[in-house]
Amino acid sequence: MHFEKVAIVGVGLIGGSFSLALKEKKLCGRVVGTGRSAANMKAALARGAIDAIEADAVAAVRDADLVLIAAPVAQFEKIFLAIGPHLGTECLVMDAGSTKRDVVSAAKKGLGGKISQFVPAHPIAGAEKSGAAAASADLFRGRRLVLTPLKENREKDVKTIADLWTAIGARVSRMTPEEHDGVFAAVSHLPHLLAYALVDDISARPDAPRLFCYAAGGFRDFTRIASSHPEMWRDICMANSDRLLAELRLFEKKLKTIGAMLEKGDAAALEKLFGDARLARERWLKGEYE
Amino acid sequence: MHFEKVAIVGVGLIGGSFSLALKEKKLCGRVVGTGRSAANMKAALARGAIDAIEADAVAAVRDADLVLIAAPVAQFEKIFLAIGPHLGTECLVMDAGSTKRDVVSAAKKGLGGKISQFVPAHPIAGAEKSGAAAASADLFRGRRLVLTPLKENREKDVKTIADLWTAIGARVSRMTPEEHDGVFAAVSHLPHLLAYALVDDISARPDAPRLFCYAAGGFRDFTRIASSHPEMWRDICMANSDRLLAELRLFEKKLKTIGAMLEKGDAAALEKLFGDARLARERWLKGEYE
Repeated sequence: MHFEKVAIVGVGLIGGSFSLALKEKKLCGRVVGTGRSAANMKAALARGAIDAIEADAVAAVRDADLVLIAAPVAQFEKIFLAIGPHLGTECLVMDAGSTKRDVVSAAKKGLGGKISQFVPAHPIAGAEKSGAAAASADLFRGRRLVLTPLKENREKDVKTIADLWTAIGARVSRMTPEEHDGVFAAVSHLPHLLAYALVDDISARPDAPRLFCYAAGGFRDFTRIASSHPEMWRDICMANSDRLLAELRLFEKKLKTIGAMLEKGDAAALEKLFGDARLARERWLKGEYE
Repeated sequence: MHFEKVAIVGVGLIGGSFSLALKEKKLCGRVVGTGRSAANMKAALARGAIDAIEADAVAAVRDADLVLIAAPVAQFEKIFLAIGPHLGTECLVMDAGSTKRDVVSAAKKGLGGKISQFVPAHPIAGAEKSGAAAASADLFRGRRLVLTPLKENREKDVKTIADLWTAIGARVSRMTPEEHDGVFAAVSHLPHLLAYALVDDISARPDAPRLFCYAAGGFRDFTRIASSHPEMWRDICMANSDRLLAELRLFEKKLKTIGAMLEKGDAAALEKLFGDARLARERWLKGEYE
């Protein structure tokens, strides 16, 4: 398994880390990158995450045998449409998008007859840091990587992509794009929305400075993901809005239930809920759900 | 400033850490403790957090010149009623409760004419760990300590308590019990409720194992406070239910607003909210609100 020329479209935390990991494992020859921010691309070059900066995605994918699209998901359709005609017939394409149904639909539109070359992928390795400067060859080590293969894919190509991510330390699993978007609406997209909502709720008040003054470690950890990239999360929320709304409705129902416990002074019900939640979290931390 | 005999009622994370810190700074002679769990009390003794275990609060406070009540807040009234008649006239009493209006009311009921000896205190040093085994002399270093003095207090006593917490590293400030409960409903009690709610929301589903399987670092940090002590948080939520409900309503309104943005596909509004929240959090982390 070796790729002569790898093209990274969007060399941020994920794209840059992927490239560094490939290089560390000697799984690739040359890596070229392209992206919107000149400063970030220079940082990527300086870090050795890429060997050359290309002006656009079309120039980047020329003669590539592997392409990773790691831009915010709202840009995918434009990117697929641009690169489609320029992909070699043996070139494999994958993405790192946090949503999958929209990405697959954009790929079908943009790649047309070359759709079989595209294997949708989602590395579960977000961080509140972004940009090539934060990239690290270790980012995917021990982290999950979800593939949502298409019926058009050749199994051998899916296996190549799976082996590639395994080689750089990821734990690869497969599901459908629909399953994927449901799962991540619950365990990732909703928590991000809630963290943003809480910080916004507090920061918009006249006494925000005093409130922040007394916010401590619990608040810091709870809101860590509210330091995530706003554009990236806008795109994720928009692309997965139906599943995210469904999760939001479930959560609102849960809050209604808890509000009623508070109103009725039902201390026993509240303690049971807290205890159940703590226990479930402990089981999760112990790896009982792996 | 030196206390010959200190009594700790409830020698958990907070009570144990307070005692260890006093000993480290040589601010006390003997420390005795009492608590409900024999195993925990033995751990406290083994760690050197206390020098002796007393059978109950009444025995513990006899001849003490400083008492710290660090039990779950629902037990305070019973404790104050029990110790009231046995407090020496020069003995100072303080607590470590996370709510203040209820604590003050319980103290007034229980201490009667000795209410001037009680200085309400709240160290902002929670952790998802609990028990004497997790105690540390460093727990309060750099952390905030809020005093909510009573009009009955002598200023000299309030100053003694403030100096004591300052000596073990805390940053002391003052507010009224009402202000306190409003501030902490927003920045502490609501986030705890939301974290518990999210874990419970997910763990109650038939596909919980698979969902947890894909929960990653963001989820872990967001829900860290859902590993907090259920009984302690039941008591806090009950004691401060009016302010907490008010915060919950505000948050539900915020979620309605965000839900409408998702429904309308208002990507710009969502991105602005995310960006504003991230900026506010960054300013907070930089200490701009201190």
